[in-house]
Amino acid sequence: MTTRVGFIGLGIMGAPMAANLRKGGHTLFLHSRSGVPQALRDVGGVPCASPAEVARQADVIILMVPDTPHVEAVLFGEHGVASALEPGKTVVDMSSISPIATRTFAQRINELGCEYLDAPVSGGEVGAKAASLTIMVGGKQQTFDAVKPLFDLMGRNITLVGGNGDGQTTKVANQIIVALNIQAVSEALLFASKAGADPAKVREALMGGFAASRVLEVHGERMIKRTFAPGFRIALHRKDLGLALDGAKALELALPNTAAVHDLMNAGMAQGVGDLDHSALCQMIEKLGEHAIGKTE
Amino acid sequence: MTTRVGFIGLGIMGAPMAANLRKGGHTLFLHSRSGVPQALRDVGGVPCASPAEVARQADVIILMVPDTPHVEAVLFGEHGVASALEPGKTVVDMSSISPIATRTFAQRINELGCEYLDAPVSGGEVGAKAASLTIMVGGKQQTFDAVKPLFDLMGRNITLVGGNGDGQTTKVANQIIVALNIQAVSEALLFASKAGADPAKVREALMGGFAASRVLEVHGERMIKRTFAPGFRIALHRKDLGLALDGAKALELALPNTAAVHDLMNAGMAQGVGDLDHSALCQMIEKLGEHAIGKTE
Repeated sequence: MTTRVGFIGLGIMGAPMAANLRKGGHTLFLHSRSGVPQALRDVGGVPCASPAEVARQADVIILMVPDTPHVEAVLFGEHGVASALEPGKTVVDMSSISPIATRTFAQRINELGCEYLDAPVSGGEVGAKAASLTIMVGGKQQTFDAVKPLFDLMGRNITLVGGNGDGQTTKVANQIIVALNIQAVSEALLFASKAGADPAKVREALMGGFAASRVLEVHGERMIKRTFAPGFRIALHRKDLGLALDGAKALELALPNTAAVHDLMNAGMAQGVGDLDHSALCQMIEKLGEHAIGKTE
Repeated sequence: MTTRVGFIGLGIMGAPMAANLRKGGHTLFLHSRSGVPQALRDVGGVPCASPAEVARQADVIILMVPDTPHVEAVLFGEHGVASALEPGKTVVDMSSISPIATRTFAQRINELGCEYLDAPVSGGEVGAKAASLTIMVGGKQQTFDAVKPLFDLMGRNITLVGGNGDGQTTKVANQIIVALNIQAVSEALLFASKAGADPAKVREALMGGFAASRVLEVHGERMIKRTFAPGFRIALHRKDLGLALDGAKALELALPNTAAVHDLMNAGMAQGVGDLDHSALCQMIEKLGEHAIGKTE
């Protein structure tokens, strides 16, 4: 069945996600701060002048924008989505934003007689293009079931975790683990390398045991080969750990290592490596001393 | 081919490892501070009065004792292995000890005309019994090849990482990653739970993506189910992180999160949970606040 889908935010992630929805045969109504890419116009995507215009035309309105204030502005700002919503429509926020703000946004959309899903993703630009994103969803089962065919065009590993906010919470948990696992692999390979072992051999020996992780596999290899082209940028990961720490503050939780890694990412920004892949976090630890992974003395 | 194998240290790990060598048909000469278990005598293991006596009888002498000072005492103390070694014999230290001390021990054994391998393991009591240990080896290729049939009776995933010390270095790297990954999963699930999400659902949603790890799989489940029977004790993991921090000090390396987790393990010892599984590290972070993973408020 063809759905009239709105897509707001057509950046590095949003553009390929929208393209995959179009390939699935859906009608697209598009808006982006930076304009609608020609490639999406060429395949029949309809440019709209404002989020309100998208909301008037589409039945399911997807957002993929940088952060909490952008979602708030798109939904509730001047010419925002909320100003033009009619009851029965569905808003799906696939941005990575605050779980706490998400609950408020969902409630305000529900009060207009509309449904809301938070559905942040992981998998980066590669996953967006390959339609292999992991999608972590918060909202009602019925709404999830209705939107699922659209998710299936953008990702694999699509889980309804719980109610509104739980999708964003899961994404924050994901970003905590990935960041801290990168730190773990950085410290371990740095130790091994400085102690005189071959970090590539060490990584290999560890892959079959309890130290095994996707990060050891993927980011560990990048650290050894010193290939830090993103992937996922330190600057964006720092933003996501900021969501974790803001949440921790609001919830009165101590997350000591999350705070420590956020701090090292601050240092990374200062050192001008914010646009490198997050595996380059190892450089922050290396710079605390005088040794780099794989360097022989 | 039947080898005359000596085994010194018959604790929770050593006893089942020796039993597996015996099942492989080898002749065993045994010594342990706490005496030789009856089960090993019953299958024909020969008790010896001292490490020296083991070294006189056996061609390959395996050590599986708690820490660096124990290895030093067994090798070079009164009635120690070194006092009775003849050229051509091989010492295999499967304990988890200092990589730096290991190089000295290896050199002193080499000077007696004997070979040395450091070959620490991971996989715990379960892996020792099931002969499924991961074995990380440092030493010469030729010596490794000669001892490999014995390793095959005790483990899988057997890697010669490099020269003497590199096996111990790899084990330290393993323990750094496992500890920091446990911390990562603890902080992430604690955040998710306190934010109101179901940690079991969150873990499930994360298993397919970049946050995936053996620790998320195994230890994450223990945290959610609150099953903290060891497994691998916090007290022992703290010892291994101590090796990492001693090494880091000697090498002049900063390992900030390793130091932080070691610190939380100190707190765990003070709180009397040192004999719980290392997944109980999550309790140290929970106790910084007022919330436990999976608790609903």
